[in-house]
Amino acid sequence: MRIVAALGGNALLQRGEHPDAAVQQHHVHDAARSLAELVLAGHEVVITHGNGPQIGLLAQESESDPALTAPYPLDVLGAQTQGMIGTLLARELAGRLPGRMVTALVTHTEVDAHDPAFEHPDKFIGGQLTDHQARMAELDRGWTCARDGAHLRRVVPSPEPRAIVELPAIRALLAGGAVVIAAGGGGVPVVRNGDTGLLRGVEAVVDKDRTAALLAEHLDADALLILTDVTHVFTRFGAGHPGPLVTATPEQLRELDLPAGSMRPKAEAAAAFAEHTGNLAAIGPLDDALGTVLGSTGTTVRALPAPGDRGPAALPAGPSAHHRAAPHATV
Amino acid sequence: MRIVAALGGNALLQRGEHPDAAVQQHHVHDAARSLAELVLAGHEVVITHGNGPQIGLLAQESESDPALTAPYPLDVLGAQTQGMIGTLLARELAGRLPGRMVTALVTHTEVDAHDPAFEHPDKFIGGQLTDHQARMAELDRGWTCARDGAHLRRVVPSPEPRAIVELPAIRALLAGGAVVIAAGGGGVPVVRNGDTGLLRGVEAVVDKDRTAALLAEHLDADALLILTDVTHVFTRFGAGHPGPLVTATPEQLRELDLPAGSMRPKAEAAAAFAEHTGNLAAIGPLDDALGTVLGSTGTTVRALPAPGDRGPAALPAGPSAHHRAAPHATV
Repeated sequence: MRIVAALGGNALLQRGEHPDAAVQQHHVHDAARSLAELVLAGHEVVITHGNGPQIGLLAQESESDPALTAPYPLDVLGAQTQGMIGTLLARELAGRLPGRMVTALVTHTEVDAHDPAFEHPDKFIGGQLTDHQARMAELDRGWTCARDGAHLRRVVPSPEPRAIVELPAIRALLAGGAVVIAAGGGGVPVVRNGDTGLLRGVEAVVDKDRTAALLAEHLDADALLILTDVTHVFTRFGAGHPGPLVTATPEQLRELDLPAGSMRPKAEAAAAFAEHTGNLAAIGPLDDALGTVLGSTGTTVRALPAPGDRGPAALPAGPSAHHRAAPHATV
Repeated sequence: MRIVAALGGNALLQRGEHPDAAVQQHHVHDAARSLAELVLAGHEVVITHGNGPQIGLLAQESESDPALTAPYPLDVLGAQTQGMIGTLLARELAGRLPGRMVTALVTHTEVDAHDPAFEHPDKFIGGQLTDHQARMAELDRGWTCARDGAHLRRVVPSPEPRAIVELPAIRALLAGGAVVIAAGGGGVPVVRNGDTGLLRGVEAVVDKDRTAALLAEHLDADALLILTDVTHVFTRFGAGHPGPLVTATPEQLRELDLPAGSMRPKAEAAAAFAEHTGNLAAIGPLDDALGTVLGSTGTTVRALPAPGDRGPAALPAGPSAHHRAAPHATV
């Protein structure tokens, strides 16, 4: 199968940890073991990843750098995180996959200059600000700030991803047998000038799960894996305790009351991919990517399952499904 | 022809300028025009670039970041600069080359763990330090510091590049018609564990001109262009004023008294490529890459020219030389 695997932020850094390179390297080491299993099982694998803590750190460094008259914009910082996380992932995977190409691409995601998100920035980035700091940043840097609980923080637009600029390069590398790391942090956001074709970076961050779903769809992937720090999507059945959800349709997944900042975008991305393509989406644990494909762990998401045919054992996953045509549903 | 074009630091930033992203973007805009001409003339182009000011800036930011218990190592910072410079170059080139793939790769350069440079770090990096700062950094961070004129600065190892890890990916992308941006800053330096194959980042910077020569040689490039802010290598002929050197053999180039930090490594890289492959090396102005290939500007370097056949007009450059086999000389 052709698989797009999206790594959550915890693949590199866990809450409360120092964001040192050595800490991130250590986590990547573990993630690489799980991802290498997918490759060794015969799957074509494209890896994408979040960059929240990393871009926050670089943004703060850039803002306090006295050598700069203006801090680096988010698109440039996002590209820096792609380089950084790309090297950490690529070198670990290359070590586990001798003789295989493992390649990290600087990847751009096209967004629409008229996306309503540019008028309504709502994605928090960076640390807490005092009222004074927020006012000064709004005046000096044109930032928008908003309340996050008791504190003010910067908010930036999170426009819808429309196209992955490097898609042909990813296809060419896959055809050559490479494991590809691409579209980290949702991709470097750019808008295309319709007349000149020129790409311009924009001050925004693209949701990495949405980009992962788009990437998987445009690559005709057989499966989208969203790998995170839980074994399943957890949900409350009736009045009981929360329990693991083993399978769901896109509709069922969307009806759940999931946390907005973490599981909700993952569930939406999985639902969108399953619905648009009819293929497998799964949300599962980072340390068992192969089990998540096979349905032995994680929540598998399929559009329109046959009645009475809902267990993971019935999922037609595995290498036998290699490269079947994706039945694109009309949306 | 297959051409490797190496951009000097001035492609992105000139001495005394603020290292703002907008300034670098502006310079890249001009460089992209010149590079696009090469592509539009029918050449296969791989672009590589320096990262001195950029890695210096990020290193200083990382060292003063209170969130980190240890600053990011040079290999990780180098990868960040590849992402940053990669996005700036790729987006400008993509705008000038509609319909062409333009792809920036996170690229690793293998070095030898026993390279003598690790025992004798001599490459200056970052700003000036007081005696106290230097002593503290030597104690706390294991840095080596040395005098650069009147001041102390950090010195790091600059080992010889041995192999470009992503060479097969670069070949696959070229075969697919891409313009490839690779091995920025000389490549992210890694050493390979001979037993496990695992790649480990090292605290070093690889000379970008040496890496460019190796990349050109291993890609069987027909030409290596080293693009910088002068029209030619300038040299003093006899007792006269310095004048532009139009052609030279590797031996002639090596005999010149050139500045160690700037033209010397460029001349050595051009001489090495010309000598090892018998193909064209040229050092010329960033704003006329095509003229530098054609010999209408720049200094062209060729091994063993036929007697009386030294003018640029006699150089067999141009698309007609496409992909001829490189006669590798025994070194």
